[in-house]
Amino acid sequence: MEPSIKDLAYALDTFYFLMSGALVMWMAAGFAMLEAGLVRAKNTTEILTKNIALYAVACIMYMLVGYNIMYGDGSPYIPGIDLFLGADNVPAEVLAQDGASWYDGSYYSSASDFFFQVVFVATAMSIVSGAVAERMKLWSFLIFAVVMTGFIYPVQGYWKWGGGFLDAAGFNDFAGSGVVHLCGATAALAGVILLGARKGKYGKDGKINAIPGANLPLATLGTFILWLGWFGFNGGSELVISNVGEANAVAKVFVNTNAAAAGGVVAALITARLMFGKADLTMALNGALAGLVAITAEPLAPTAGWATVIGMIGGVLVVFSIVTMDKLKIDDPVGAISVHGVVGMWGLLAVPLTNADATITAQLLGLGTILVWTFATSFIVWMIIKAVMGIRVSEEEEFEGCDIGECGLEAYPEFTLGSR
Amino acid sequence: MEPSIKDLAYALDTFYFLMSGALVMWMAAGFAMLEAGLVRAKNTTEILTKNIALYAVACIMYMLVGYNIMYGDGSPYIPGIDLFLGADNVPAEVLAQDGASWYDGSYYSSASDFFFQVVFVATAMSIVSGAVAERMKLWSFLIFAVVMTGFIYPVQGYWKWGGGFLDAAGFNDFAGSGVVHLCGATAALAGVILLGARKGKYGKDGKINAIPGANLPLATLGTFILWLGWFGFNGGSELVISNVGEANAVAKVFVNTNAAAAGGVVAALITARLMFGKADLTMALNGALAGLVAITAEPLAPTAGWATVIGMIGGVLVVFSIVTMDKLKIDDPVGAISVHGVVGMWGLLAVPLTNADATITAQLLGLGTILVWTFATSFIVWMIIKAVMGIRVSEEEEFEGCDIGECGLEAYPEFTLGSR
Amino acid sequence: MEPSIKDLAYALDTFYFLMSGALVMWMAAGFAMLEAGLVRAKNTTEILTKNIALYAVACIMYMLVGYNIMYGDGSPYIPGIDLFLGADNVPAEVLAQDGASWYDGSYYSSASDFFFQVVFVATAMSIVSGAVAERMKLWSFLIFAVVMTGFIYPVQGYWKWGGGFLDAAGFNDFAGSGVVHLCGATAALAGVILLGARKGKYGKDGKINAIPGANLPLATLGTFILWLGWFGFNGGSELVISNVGEANAVAKVFVNTNAAAAGGVVAALITARLMFGKADLTMALNGALAGLVAITAEPLAPTAGWATVIGMIGGVLVVFSIVTMDKLKIDDPVGAISVHGVVGMWGLLAVPLTNADATITAQLLGLGTILVWTFATSFIVWMIIKAVMGIRVSEEEEFEGCDIGECGLEAYPEFTLGSR
Repeated sequence: MEPSIKDLAYALDTFYFLMSGALVMWMAAGFAMLEAGLVRAKNTTEILTKNIALYAVACIMYMLVGYNIMYGDGSPYIPGIDLFLGADNVPAEVLAQDGASWYDGSYYSSASDFFFQVVFVATAMSIVSGAVAERMKLWSFLIFAVVMTGFIYPVQGYWKWGGGFLDAAGFNDFAGSGVVHLCGATAALAGVILLGARKGKYGKDGKINAIPGANLPLATLGTFILWLGWFGFNGGSELVISNVGEANAVAKVFVNTNAAAAGGVVAALITARLMFGKADLTMALNGALAGLVAITAEPLAPTAGWATVIGMIGGVLVVFSIVTMDKLKIDDPVGAISVHGVVGMWGLLAVPLTNADATITAQLLGLGTILVWTFATSFIVWMIIKAVMGIRVSEEEEFEGCDIGECGLEAYPEFTLGSR
Repeated sequence: MEPSIKDLAYALDTFYFLMSGALVMWMAAGFAMLEAGLVRAKNTTEILTKNIALYAVACIMYMLVGYNIMYGDGSPYIPGIDLFLGADNVPAEVLAQDGASWYDGSYYSSASDFFFQVVFVATAMSIVSGAVAERMKLWSFLIFAVVMTGFIYPVQGYWKWGGGFLDAAGFNDFAGSGVVHLCGATAALAGVILLGARKGKYGKDGKINAIPGANLPLATLGTFILWLGWFGFNGGSELVISNVGEANAVAKVFVNTNAAAAGGVVAALITARLMFGKADLTMALNGALAGLVAITAEPLAPTAGWATVIGMIGGVLVVFSIVTMDKLKIDDPVGAISVHGVVGMWGLLAVPLTNADATITAQLLGLGTILVWTFATSFIVWMIIKAVMGIRVSEEEEFEGCDIGECGLEAYPEFTLGSR
Repeated sequence: MEPSIKDLAYALDTFYFLMSGALVMWMAAGFAMLEAGLVRAKNTTEILTKNIALYAVACIMYMLVGYNIMYGDGSPYIPGIDLFLGADNVPAEVLAQDGASWYDGSYYSSASDFFFQVVFVATAMSIVSGAVAERMKLWSFLIFAVVMTGFIYPVQGYWKWGGGFLDAAGFNDFAGSGVVHLCGATAALAGVILLGARKGKYGKDGKINAIPGANLPLATLGTFILWLGWFGFNGGSELVISNVGEANAVAKVFVNTNAAAAGGVVAALITARLMFGKADLTMALNGALAGLVAITAEPLAPTAGWATVIGMIGGVLVVFSIVTMDKLKIDDPVGAISVHGVVGMWGLLAVPLTNADATITAQLLGLGTILVWTFATSFIVWMIIKAVMGIRVSEEEEFEGCDIGECGLEAYPEFTLGSR
């Protein structure tokens, strides 16, 4: 049977959504490699385990409850908690394949929508793992992941993307500088404050000790993976591609996403050169990510030139933020709070520069709401976990490395001993 | 010239097929990284060489004969061996670009079909390399690859996907839990039995010695690559996407593939925690792959909830299977026989749970046929290679590592010596 | 609103272009990993920094001037230098989204075209970084990147793809064996000649010392990434996919690209085995890349069998070329000049074998023009940089490794010291 034009548009949009989702799923690998490269060898197995496990937890929790909260019915403030029915019949309902209701609001398979959304929540959670690396208990972290991906993230996501009050208030956040990146960074910040710094990071004399990552090629690979995945993250957030206007929009988003990342690299590299006298690779990597986070709130409105500038400012900001965090003794081994939190805020506030529909008031409302909600709920959850089972490994385990204590496996058993 | 609606459907389906094929090709990198991460440093160059070479061999052999056997004419039992004409004119014929016969059975470019199929055969062969790692001769392995990809795999593939007797008998295997994964694992098993265990793996006192992999970030990267590639593997196996029903089906396959992998990770991680007291990363990785293998026979019929459960059972199974293999002294350095063979069987047998068209009888027939055919033919081929040129490296070479002996290059010359 | 058939074709072609571009962008990661794997540990951070920075520089320079030169107006010999207006308004103009002019020459979003082109220029520049590795100053390299991506590459690109005199003369170069690969390799050659060999590479007694790469899994990963990315590189160069004929063409390009790479692996592996007595992994990797470079000038006309043969010849050539370069004391740590230059020439000259429209005269004209232009301009630019700020690190820094001197960070701080 020959397909109709509607069939083709539906199929193309679904395929575009699925490819975008696959690229975002790939970001999970990017975070895993980035974080594994930036921690010490003795904590590498553990951070890898956290990364693959948090992705799995996110997929399950979002299927069970998160997606229903975020895109279910509800008042502008209270999301659709009536969907907390659990297990099998909810996803069956949610993912129901309705070919008949075509083009009445759903331009593509609802399953492809679920797939795209579920990889987003995993991204938010991936941000947390880096900031709490090298000292947080594995299972405590995963319990936090359950609450974060099933509840904390979906509620604030509902307020914007599910049609809640932030959306009604005119808050603009195209692909999630706030909803995804700031949210993840804020949950991380709450955890880091309760957790404290790594032993030896801050000396008694106020000295800040650099703790270099064990494997920079891995960190670089992770950055490139994230850069690639971001084309799905931002490009897919246009949601539709099947006509000239939408196709142009998606293409512009690709160009701007790339331009912002390029700007971030160059700006961070030069800033680091001026500040430290060296071409600091880790700053270049964080610059790329900062550029990407910065453009995520509005990758469509700017010209490519403006996108480069927005990314560059992100790249400069991230270097200063990382330095400042250390002065504040907020120990974030991979710089996640700076990259996703501080630059995420810059991304939100930059929207009115190029998008006439956005106001600084609405942007501040959204920024503040995400910050307060995520910090408050995360802090409470971390507190409860800390009280019940603890969140920090023992001093001895921290000294020995989390890999042996938590996972029973070294990441590089032959290299760190220096023998065959 | 403005394209017709048929043009667009043909183009979209072809593009979908090509993207799916590219994702499956990427799985070759996944297997290479997974296996390189799980062997010892001294055998890493060799396993990388095997992986890239087997992919190349598979592409050439499948072009020359395999594709013709699998999708040529023939009786239900004997595939189209009349196509063994060799070299150039066969591919030219097979890959002929026929725009005129549009939508009469071929919805997409035949070249895109060949591309999708050729990366599948490479996947099956990749499974073998891991199981025989750290002791098999490189060139013996590649000779086996020639026969496997040119003959053993295509014949059983013909029986199901080429329209042979297994297809007629109602055997269900959507994307190849049996045709690809069980087949690869069975060929590996035959090789491992003839090859014997690595020196030092099983002590005289019955003690099983763990031989840890040298580079777990690499193994984790490999797993993520495979996870991503599997969206092409399963998603592309729907074959068509250009109408509402097909687009919905592909989207559901993506969701279920992801859900099963997530279920596999969580189940394997918890199982390992209960059995060994630690969050064993390698089990989590094998759990992800087990979930993926389990859902591959039927990723369309289940709800996402069921898919998660099917993956979870795969994740539990794989942990017990790996432990059992060691008790049976079947030495499989990467767990490939458990992941692809044991869980592949589970995948085949799980089909009737959610697909009403499938019967347990037909599934058992298919499972048994693949197992017997592949084991028998592989065993004979391994035997012949063993008799003619040997399959195992010398004891001295095994002790020194295959890298120096076979490839003349160390994988990490500066790390394992511990000096700059 | 229901889309029209034109909308769908435009959207599909744009999406195909964007996905192809994303794959080519991914090649930047491939070059980074390949080069990082093939240098010594002490120069790894620096080569990674160069790779991510050159990509960023390429994106910015090509946006500012390169794209305008390459695809602007001009005489057949002098490209559109009137577009050197700089900064923001040029990209705004260039990237203008014009939905009205549909299908009058532009079958897809102009932004998607820019995205596809910009990742190509980055590829050309990536080739240079490998050849000059382990001894060139970081900032001198980046200044060369500014000129190369903003001027040298675009001018010769204009002569062929922008509609200049090489195009008019019937020079055939489908996806850039010449415009991209030979151009990059020639710029690298000019740099290497001025730079000289690494200390210790060539002994006073004429002995050639092998300097093994520090991380072969990384190099293998890079090769697989490049192989995957090449489907976008060659496949996207068909430019349109939205009808039966074009879809068949794209599919054939995928098949041939894969076949040539496979041929290159097998041929290089066997050649190395015969010459050195071992299955040299680095030769297999270079064989894959040689196959890909060889087919890039004409991936559409050959049958898959011919494509395999063209790749095989590339695979043999690259082994001999690498050996010969060392005899000529042209020190190229990753073999980039052989892979992209020597085999790029083979690719250009092989076009007339399968494409009746191509002539050996036109191919030689194109080859010679690219070679002379790129060598002359690159040599002058390298000379100027050398005179002004130097291009080679100090002897002490070379001995210590570029990582500490240039970047202040070791790539593997815990492995190379052999201690935790």
